[in-house]
Amino acid sequence: METLTTTIDIGNTAFMLVCTSLVMLMTPGLAFFYGGLVSRQNVLTIMIQSFASMGWTTVIWFMFGYSMCFGPTWYGIIGDPTYYAFFNHVTPQAIFAANDAGIPLIVHIAYQMMFAIITPALITGAFANRVTFKAYMLFLTFWLIFVYFPFVHMIWSPNGLFAKWGVLDFAGGIVVHNTCGFAALASVMFVGARKKTGDRPHNVPLIALGTGLLWFGWYGFNAGSELRVDMITASSFLATDLSASFAAITWLIVERIHKKRTSFIGLLTGAVAGLATITPAAGYVSLTTACFIGVVAGCVCYATVVLVHKLGLDDALDVFGVHGMGGLIGSLLLGIFGSLAWNPNGANGLIFGGYEFFYKQVVVVVCSSIWAFVFTYLMLWVINRFITVRVTEASEHSGLDADQLGENAYER
Amino acid sequence: METLTTTIDIGNTAFMLVCTSLVMLMTPGLAFFYGGLVSRQNVLTIMIQSFASMGWTTVIWFMFGYSMCFGPTWYGIIGDPTYYAFFNHVTPQAIFAANDAGIPLIVHIAYQMMFAIITPALITGAFANRVTFKAYMLFLTFWLIFVYFPFVHMIWSPNGLFAKWGVLDFAGGIVVHNTCGFAALASVMFVGARKKTGDRPHNVPLIALGTGLLWFGWYGFNAGSELRVDMITASSFLATDLSASFAAITWLIVERIHKKRTSFIGLLTGAVAGLATITPAAGYVSLTTACFIGVVAGCVCYATVVLVHKLGLDDALDVFGVHGMGGLIGSLLLGIFGSLAWNPNGANGLIFGGYEFFYKQVVVVVCSSIWAFVFTYLMLWVINRFITVRVTEASEHSGLDADQLGENAYER
Amino acid sequence: METLTTTIDIGNTAFMLVCTSLVMLMTPGLAFFYGGLVSRQNVLTIMIQSFASMGWTTVIWFMFGYSMCFGPTWYGIIGDPTYYAFFNHVTPQAIFAANDAGIPLIVHIAYQMMFAIITPALITGAFANRVTFKAYMLFLTFWLIFVYFPFVHMIWSPNGLFAKWGVLDFAGGIVVHNTCGFAALASVMFVGARKKTGDRPHNVPLIALGTGLLWFGWYGFNAGSELRVDMITASSFLATDLSASFAAITWLIVERIHKKRTSFIGLLTGAVAGLATITPAAGYVSLTTACFIGVVAGCVCYATVVLVHKLGLDDALDVFGVHGMGGLIGSLLLGIFGSLAWNPNGANGLIFGGYEFFYKQVVVVVCSSIWAFVFTYLMLWVINRFITVRVTEASEHSGLDADQLGENAYER
Repeated sequence: METLTTTIDIGNTAFMLVCTSLVMLMTPGLAFFYGGLVSRQNVLTIMIQSFASMGWTTVIWFMFGYSMCFGPTWYGIIGDPTYYAFFNHVTPQAIFAANDAGIPLIVHIAYQMMFAIITPALITGAFANRVTFKAYMLFLTFWLIFVYFPFVHMIWSPNGLFAKWGVLDFAGGIVVHNTCGFAALASVMFVGARKKTGDRPHNVPLIALGTGLLWFGWYGFNAGSELRVDMITASSFLATDLSASFAAITWLIVERIHKKRTSFIGLLTGAVAGLATITPAAGYVSLTTACFIGVVAGCVCYATVVLVHKLGLDDALDVFGVHGMGGLIGSLLLGIFGSLAWNPNGANGLIFGGYEFFYKQVVVVVCSSIWAFVFTYLMLWVINRFITVRVTEASEHSGLDADQLGENAYER
Repeated sequence: METLTTTIDIGNTAFMLVCTSLVMLMTPGLAFFYGGLVSRQNVLTIMIQSFASMGWTTVIWFMFGYSMCFGPTWYGIIGDPTYYAFFNHVTPQAIFAANDAGIPLIVHIAYQMMFAIITPALITGAFANRVTFKAYMLFLTFWLIFVYFPFVHMIWSPNGLFAKWGVLDFAGGIVVHNTCGFAALASVMFVGARKKTGDRPHNVPLIALGTGLLWFGWYGFNAGSELRVDMITASSFLATDLSASFAAITWLIVERIHKKRTSFIGLLTGAVAGLATITPAAGYVSLTTACFIGVVAGCVCYATVVLVHKLGLDDALDVFGVHGMGGLIGSLLLGIFGSLAWNPNGANGLIFGGYEFFYKQVVVVVCSSIWAFVFTYLMLWVINRFITVRVTEASEHSGLDADQLGENAYER
Repeated sequence: METLTTTIDIGNTAFMLVCTSLVMLMTPGLAFFYGGLVSRQNVLTIMIQSFASMGWTTVIWFMFGYSMCFGPTWYGIIGDPTYYAFFNHVTPQAIFAANDAGIPLIVHIAYQMMFAIITPALITGAFANRVTFKAYMLFLTFWLIFVYFPFVHMIWSPNGLFAKWGVLDFAGGIVVHNTCGFAALASVMFVGARKKTGDRPHNVPLIALGTGLLWFGWYGFNAGSELRVDMITASSFLATDLSASFAAITWLIVERIHKKRTSFIGLLTGAVAGLATITPAAGYVSLTTACFIGVVAGCVCYATVVLVHKLGLDDALDVFGVHGMGGLIGSLLLGIFGSLAWNPNGANGLIFGGYEFFYKQVVVVVCSSIWAFVFTYLMLWVINRFITVRVTEASEHSGLDADQLGENAYER
């Protein structure tokens, strides 16, 4: 039997494969989280959107997605879509070249694919119960091409514009959460509010299941983003958990003060907000900062959710408040609290004299927010020229599952 | 403290332990997948069949199962059942000898045990809502002894008949999916159709949960089958995902063309078909081939499911269409597209001039299909002499959970 | 890019991080297990207790918890709460010093945190449907400080009283299961029986999901407790599975003999009993012993559950029978069957002449049982002076979810 490990580091490769599995599991987790939050007539419609991304984003990733993200750069904006097209140049022997961890190129492809799958799926919570499956599939496709892939390239590819400029985003506060949150906001403004009001979450244990799986998978999402096993891998792992926990408890307390009651859904939402907010900073800040970030996430995301509702924006499952705002403040907090003493491959934030670094973080967050918002809005407008984005009022009233898919989530 | 790692490779051992956990989780996943597909009066009856395999197959594995699979060979057909009986010769110090990856023998025992647990459980979807628990326990026992253990030995034990002949089965397309699929067909023909018709899946989110966990665990199933961490581990991991995704999307499209609608259950079933079909080939074919295999799986398994229903065979949860046909075509596609350039420990398929290899794959698939079908049918006939295999019509009408277990899945 | 792995063992660190994720997932798993067992009006109240521990115990762990467990010892009884307070002395560079496996201190902190989270959550099953959220949060806090942290320190910290004396507890039979089981018993005696009787488990598939995740996570719980990857890691992994499986099958058989029926919930409860019972012994006994321990667990825990009910103690979800008795007999069976030949870092039990070791195990189990029982009872009495521990009868009758949280688990 031939030995097939010549230049592979076994430990790093094993860890990255496991992290890839963990991130993959987040998308079903998201489907349960969102599925539980909607009414029982609309469960499958939102769940299929997540699962369809597992299928279709993979196809795109194979055709040109990975290439657009990590292919040879075109002016620092986007990768050459042809270089890795149809996994050209991808062999088992190829080693990922951007670090010296000894992981196969294939592992990097698989790991990053899971990020591409979940990011657009996160948006679907915003326009729950309102959008046709066909329109969503177009949305998914174009959003990846024009929002997600460029930002991955610009921020995470070694030759990307923002990467070279010195911007940091550990596991996707800007790339994932900020872009999807602002896309969510644009979607809500384009499609308008739900006609049928008064729906309550139909299955809270399902939401809890989703949260549990998201939390579990998020270790792979954040700790895996170090792309190897070292001290920062461990630190970002624990930072992730601390932020989630502090945000969950903070949300409980803030809700108690504001609404005079404690809710289970509040605790779960708070945990997700903490997870989203620590994402850009997980490996670049101290553990104490991670706790603080969790507390800020609990307060600011809660306030944003309340504000969005007050403004009459029907962000059905609070995607903007949790992910958009979480990604935004996380990226800025990194600009403030980043510490070279903690991670020598990171940067010093404002409090350690890193004015320039903070400024860059602000610039890029503003850019990504605006681009995600504007492009998403325009894209929906264009799609709507060809395919009706919004379902009929009748469909909304009877529930989308029966009307759009001809299926019911439950037998009776 | 004494050091206890003398000859163990830490990375490989860690990875294989994690893979073992992942494969273990597939059996609960399967229980949810099947549980969601049946009506609410029959949920527990099918779920207990999977969980009982987790218990009982482990007992058998301890007593003689591992020994029959991987003990010293008896004419290449079966392992000596006494050699490892009651884990004789199994010490913490023993190293798995069939490769040089430095994993403990105990890890191989645990990993392979999870395969033995899930394989018979897969069959249960075929005869859902019809079979007594007692008969199932006998079925489980004898099927392992006379179908599963011999095929594991012949194909995966280094001294097995087919292994020596040059047949390949990366992670169980023949050993697991083909055998269980043809056993399913035989079971359906023996027990006959359900009396109570018109049942709909009672809980689609539960099916989605099952699919998510199966997909997640399948990484351990396929990538772990390399039994170490190397470039093929990574390649089989990604191949698994590609096939699942391409098959899911293909199923969606084929169903849309055929039935003029898209269904969530269709997408989920397609993903499982893609996973089953890539299983024998995952580490032996290129990633592009894996995509193609996914597309073929989506088409052929879909067609098979339709055909089986047209023929009036009540394969309740489509075990034959998905696993039987998936395992069969996957094993043949490996015979066609296997590539030594991709994996030097594999074989060249038909398109690379490997006529002989293709021929051998065909022969073994035919053998395993026939043996699994014929033996299963006869076994059920014999069991039925002693214990009534099929439940009464009254039990079927009232639902098996209340009648057979005295439990209800839901409070109301 | 600076290399950040100077003294870290990549494989061990990767494995421990994955184990930490697995143990984390057990707490949501527990929430589903308990959530499924109660009636549909009380689901969220018990689930939030587990999830709140994920949040709040983490906060405590950060503030002083880890320090009380593993800080410099105060007379072998408790760790100096100030040493690691607010993660003082915790840097990414710090290596865990109690073994030479090369895992970061941060990994040990994260791993042990997951144990602290689940232990008090286990107790909640005993007083299901009866206790206010506020009282529970106080209960959680003080129980950790006065029961869990001291026992962790005394048994698992290298300078702990019992550790130095020679007591062994591989993964928490005494520290986790025995303490929580006796605390459960005390809680039941303090709060009294439920007023509303006749409630049935409202969702058995949810129980099965919980069991599946608990079982899955338990590999991380037990195998990870070796705190590195070596032959004992593998052995404790398989021992865990064997005990669970043998206990599940034993419970099925015992229940069949006793009640003339087989139940799915019985099988699931049996598996958990087997998992709890093997926990203290997993790495110190042979695999054959692990099978035997599973059988004993199935019998003794079953009998205890029956007995507790006969005594009129309303241990709602059988926490004492499963965890209290499981942890107790597991720790004693380790004192009987522990084998230095199997694990040179373990001890010889009674049958290998280890009279003294057995005696010590007995002493510590008695101590921990009494302390957990007495302290818990007194603590509840004190808490009840300030906050009413028990909900009103009206709340109990209408269901706690609506009354205490203002939420319903299901839309209806």
